Amino acid sequence: MEFRIERTAFAEAVGWAARALPSRTPVPVLGGLLLAAGAGRLTVSGFDFEAAARIDVDAETASAGQVLVPGRRLLDICRVLPDGPVSCALSGTRFTVEADGTEFGMSTLPREEYPALPSQPSAYGSVDAAAFATAVGQVAVAAGRDETLPVLTGVQLRLDGDSMTLSASDRYRYAVRRVGWKPESDATASDGAVDALVPARRLLDAARSLARCGVVRVGLDRAAGGGLAGFEGGGMRSVVRLLDGRLPKYGSLFDMAGAAVAEVECGALTEAVRRVAVVAEASSPVRMDFSGDGCVLLRAGFGDDVATQRLPAVLSGAQEVTVAFNPAYLLDALNSFEAPRLRMELLGAGQRTLLSAVAGEDGSKDGSEDGSEVGSGDGSGDGGAEAGSASHRHLLMSVKQLV
Amino acid sequence: MEFRIERTAFAEAVGWAARALPSRTPVPVLGGLLLAAGAGRLTVSGFDFEAAARIDVDAETASAGQVLVPGRRLLDICRVLPDGPVSCALSGTRFTVEADGTEFGMSTLPREEYPALPSQPSAYGSVDAAAFATAVGQVAVAAGRDETLPVLTGVQLRLDGDSMTLSASDRYRYAVRRVGWKPESDATASDGAVDALVPARRLLDAARSLARCGVVRVGLDRAAGGGLAGFEGGGMRSVVRLLDGRLPKYGSLFDMAGAAVAEVECGALTEAVRRVAVVAEASSPVRMDFSGDGCVLLRAGFGDDVATQRLPAVLSGAQEVTVAFNPAYLLDALNSFEAPRLRMELLGAGQRTLLSAVAGEDGSKDGSEDGSEVGSGDGSGDGGAEAGSASHRHLLMSVKQLV
Repeated sequence: MEFRIERTAFAEAVGWAARALPSRTPVPVLGGLLLAAGAGRLTVSGFDFEAAARIDVDAETASAGQVLVPGRRLLDICRVLPDGPVSCALSGTRFTVEADGTEFGMSTLPREEYPALPSQPSAYGSVDAAAFATAVGQVAVAAGRDETLPVLTGVQLRLDGDSMTLSASDRYRYAVRRVGWKPESDATASDGAVDALVPARRLLDAARSLARCGVVRVGLDRAAGGGLAGFEGGGMRSVVRLLDGRLPKYGSLFDMAGAAVAEVECGALTEAVRRVAVVAEASSPVRMDFSGDGCVLLRAGFGDDVATQRLPAVLSGAQEVTVAFNPAYLLDALNSFEAPRLRMELLGAGQRTLLSAVAGEDGSKDGSEDGSEVGSGDGSGDGGAEAGSASHRHLLMSVKQLV
Repeated sequence: MEFRIERTAFAEAVGWAARALPSRTPVPVLGGLLLAAGAGRLTVSGFDFEAAARIDVDAETASAGQVLVPGRRLLDICRVLPDGPVSCALSGTRFTVEADGTEFGMSTLPREEYPALPSQPSAYGSVDAAAFATAVGQVAVAAGRDETLPVLTGVQLRLDGDSMTLSASDRYRYAVRRVGWKPESDATASDGAVDALVPARRLLDAARSLARCGVVRVGLDRAAGGGLAGFEGGGMRSVVRLLDGRLPKYGSLFDMAGAAVAEVECGALTEAVRRVAVVAEASSPVRMDFSGDGCVLLRAGFGDDVATQRLPAVLSGAQEVTVAFNPAYLLDALNSFEAPRLRMELLGAGQRTLLSAVAGEDGSKDGSEDGSEVGSGDGSGDGGAEAGSASHRHLLMSVKQLV
């Protein structure tokens, strides 16, 4: 096995595949990256049983072959290689990397002990890469981090007709966002709604790394035990094991009939919350007093150690409303919006609050092809298995209050 | 007490004094910053018994007074305050900070329980602020981090005639650097050489924060138990408790008679060491084979996991020399030099190696007023109490080898 490749391309490929390397593993071969050269292509793959990452790049392949090398070591070497062409060769069990007078030797790992990589699930459809990365980033914020409740650590993808609905919740926040979806064929389009629960961290990583691929092809394989989701674009492919189960239905969570509505500047509110939260000890709330005078008063702290700030806010549907949030959750939610102005639907103290972009002002790039807007009154839940009743393309984020 | 000040100036002053706040303290008042306002000036001071930091800035002082406030909290508040003027006031035991619609309240700490701040030791002389910061940075690298050997955690300042000699060693490295020194008066000049051993981390912090003050006035107070050193410039003042004892004398350590001499490009060597060190496990060496063919071969690693790189290096005084270093120590030393070319004096395997800038190429800004250069043969040790025999203005770094 022998190949030649530019350092930048090599380092990027190794770096990309290395994201699937487990940080610690009792199985040494899983710490390896599989390099396969042949026919002018180099493939680099990593695998940790939960996810596999694979990338295909151009290379001058003088002789074909495969080798399993210690992944972190190769990553470290790629980082320090001088720019320019890199020559790699396998001789016996020794792999050498040479560039401009610098030569590295590496001992290799036993190829025959490496598990078979999962194959890419059959293509199901495709999504705009940038919009997908944005949406996953917005929704994943609300996913849980508690591994003892695995279902809540996932982002649920619902593929239905021409839309992909992403949702996540840790019981304190519930985020939903829809993006445009292009089914692979009429056959998949007529399958009806399909749900897949993908580990949030893995999905975020895959979506971000594919953000500049133009289009991401999504595959689903629900036959195998547990199921697999595949994300592919620009020579990169990520296969992730699905989580069992599905998210609790949001039902009427987003039905905010009778709520007071406040409109605020997202940036100013974010800054103000961050500011007053300085005096909020862990799990103590930031209070927001909305009143009819066009202002909201933010307050945090107790006794002498308090902070207050007043901001403009247009309230309708009530004379005054007071709500109180965990400042970290509120900031997570605020930071997920790209829109300059936010709409807060307020049911009052102790009740959930719904955040959404003010209609026509959301900053997302995928437009509003279906013409629906947040707050049009028909975006109030998925009702279980019925298809596509959540007709919003914007982010909806429901946040529980601290009482 | 009431004053008004621009946010930037307030945040900088609080940030500067906060560097003396202990990270954890069983004595709550030591977590406080003392604010004193009066006569158009605001003074902010912090103290942790080992060092005190004090800064004096302009402020509109409506009414004079002092207050002791929780330091980290004030620091956090300063970070998030909006730009513009900040109004502060003490009312009873409550301190308020107000800026552009944002108001913070803070409970205060009992002023009467706060220890007396050490007074600035009487001025002893002064040093160029930028040159001092550079020199301390270069020398402090060689100071020990092992608190069980407190003497080795210091940088020794020797004030003698018109020079300040800084030295530090952790037994594996010994660094010495001289900078110009201006005694405060003829009286201090005629005192003879005076040594002060200052904790390296504190000195580094003080020197860096004063680097842009133009001139740093240095005071010494050796009468009080343990002694104090003061560093003052631009309204800022740092007082640091001296360490007991003194550094082991470097004696003939820098006498490299009979050594082979290699000249290398500092940048290329640094990059190459960093590169090959990727395969050097903790405490395994990077070897350098200097030979008569104008090259040095760097090698690291064992068995199949090795790295090599060849670099130009001019060797004189021997046919070939092989040396081996702890890569982290070698990198520390290389990074301390500003000169483009380095001179390595090599006594051979297992012996110390002396690094210095190639004569006339050092990048330091304070010139070579005394005309002496590294390698002129008279810079070989302080011989104990004799004054000023180390006649180099450059950095000398002696590094032990790994064998």
